[in-house]
Amino acid sequence: MSKGALALLISGGTENWAPERWRERFRRGCPGRRVALLPDDRVDPAEVRYAAVWKPPPGRLAAFPHLQAIFNLGAGVDAVLGDPSLPAVPLVRVADDDLTRRMTEYVTLHVLMHHRQQRYLDEAQRQAFWAPKLQWAADAVRVGIMGLGVLGRDAAEVLARIGFRVAGWSRRAKVIPGIECFAGEAGLAPFLARTDILVCLLPLTEETRGILDQRTFSLLARDGVLGGPVIVNAGRGGLQVERDILAALDDGTLAAATLDVFETEPLPMESPLWSHPRVTVTPHNAADTDPDAISTYVARQIARHEGGLPLENVVDRHTGY
Amino acid sequence: MSKGALALLISGGTENWAPERWRERFRRGCPGRRVALLPDDRVDPAEVRYAAVWKPPPGRLAAFPHLQAIFNLGAGVDAVLGDPSLPAVPLVRVADDDLTRRMTEYVTLHVLMHHRQQRYLDEAQRQAFWAPKLQWAADAVRVGIMGLGVLGRDAAEVLARIGFRVAGWSRRAKVIPGIECFAGEAGLAPFLARTDILVCLLPLTEETRGILDQRTFSLLARDGVLGGPVIVNAGRGGLQVERDILAALDDGTLAAATLDVFETEPLPMESPLWSHPRVTVTPHNAADTDPDAISTYVARQIARHEGGLPLENVVDRHTGY
Repeated sequence: MSKGALALLISGGTENWAPERWRERFRRGCPGRRVALLPDDRVDPAEVRYAAVWKPPPGRLAAFPHLQAIFNLGAGVDAVLGDPSLPAVPLVRVADDDLTRRMTEYVTLHVLMHHRQQRYLDEAQRQAFWAPKLQWAADAVRVGIMGLGVLGRDAAEVLARIGFRVAGWSRRAKVIPGIECFAGEAGLAPFLARTDILVCLLPLTEETRGILDQRTFSLLARDGVLGGPVIVNAGRGGLQVERDILAALDDGTLAAATLDVFETEPLPMESPLWSHPRVTVTPHNAADTDPDAISTYVARQIARHEGGLPLENVVDRHTGY
Repeated sequence: MSKGALALLISGGTENWAPERWRERFRRGCPGRRVALLPDDRVDPAEVRYAAVWKPPPGRLAAFPHLQAIFNLGAGVDAVLGDPSLPAVPLVRVADDDLTRRMTEYVTLHVLMHHRQQRYLDEAQRQAFWAPKLQWAADAVRVGIMGLGVLGRDAAEVLARIGFRVAGWSRRAKVIPGIECFAGEAGLAPFLARTDILVCLLPLTEETRGILDQRTFSLLARDGVLGGPVIVNAGRGGLQVERDILAALDDGTLAAATLDVFETEPLPMESPLWSHPRVTVTPHNAADTDPDAISTYVARQIARHEGGLPLENVVDRHTGY
């Protein structure tokens, strides 16, 4: 009996997204199933039951008449949901411990870099200048995390363990032990008013698009010990208004920004963000997907589905996450 | 009844060590007791019962005939123990949560900077070059912590929570849940052989002086994912042989080094460490002492002592910590 084929549709560019690497991992993880990397491999569209995708070309998934589920190989599903001809089958997002831990690494690193004045110390080193500045302990610094899904919670936990005063904000109210939780439109202003370092891990939806804008920045705490509020965006580029970030850095509304994501990726060479002295740019690598972990995860979900169990982490197309 | 005076002897230089700030905190923390900041304030040496010190001039403490205890205001007591005329009264080191947390901030930040290839990404940003490299998760990286006192244990715990494979080494055998513990001379080579990032938090004693040398570096793991072993020294400058560090960086024995402490401090302007592309220099500010926390700690120890209870965290002059 044929198991039905799995189609791999991968656009990307980074070393981690080498399509052949994914094909090899999926073939190993799904023994007995035909795994076709498109457009390289040939496959009868009618044979395809599953698609594992990263930023697939719009319209491409509609070509499979017997598709049963789509697996998105990264955390953000906005690229897939933007396809107007997306088939009405379950869209599964990865919710994998490896991805969560990587994002927590990134958030912890960049919050600590701001807290510990690392950019000042880098500059002092360049000048061979031994000049420690007053350094507060983490419990003098208030971190606010936007987005309290799996990623936001894990980062919040680690930052609280290190000693930061951590709060979170989410669209719908959440309860997390040890973390002050704000929710909804009404909770946004008080959340921002107590936040020195704003970490954004929100999904990109119609409600969150452009949320990192002048209005949000102007509501951040101005009485903190860091010399001004700081943002760290490791969510999606569409969450931020880059024109507003640059203006806020220049008029003192923001002291610094760390950005892993951008309105256009790769970030164009002419963007002033690259050379701004108070901006740290990373190339959308906060939480790379690990082919081993993700292919294992997808194989497990397919086994659940074929064993009659519901798929896990199915995206709600109404909320967009 | 007079409570006896407390003499403050502070040498330093950083903003955090402003002597007047300490005097003000100690006067607030020890109500009813005379607090004399030397050499500014005048005090009858016979009246001094306690001394709170940071790098006091050798010979100075011997001038107090009725001294009952010495409180060292930072973590390392090597500067005090180096005074040949040090009175034979209890020497108390601070073992304060604030200090511990600050050290954990520092260690976590710098381990993550190496793990997350932050120096490579800084350079890519300078060149406006969008070029993510393969990034492993923390569980592919083995951190080894030398020194498993209060500081080493706390850092080990946080690094393990983030996902690193953490082991520790100490002179005497320790047991810490979740941390592989090595001990003694016999345990050193196997500990180093499984370590990609070596974090040094040892006290400086006759046994540990110069332990970060060519021999130690040559025993570190060469099969890790970071492209070579890395060291982070936040202990004492006397633990490291800077000539060996530079040679090891240049011949590939070490891939990188983060140093908060130096053989001579402040690090001389002519030191090649300042400008070495794979060295991060910080100005001995890994774990600054917080005057509020420490003056409260000392006041509590004096109250214990005068209430007939034993002083805590008394230094063993034989082992030197």
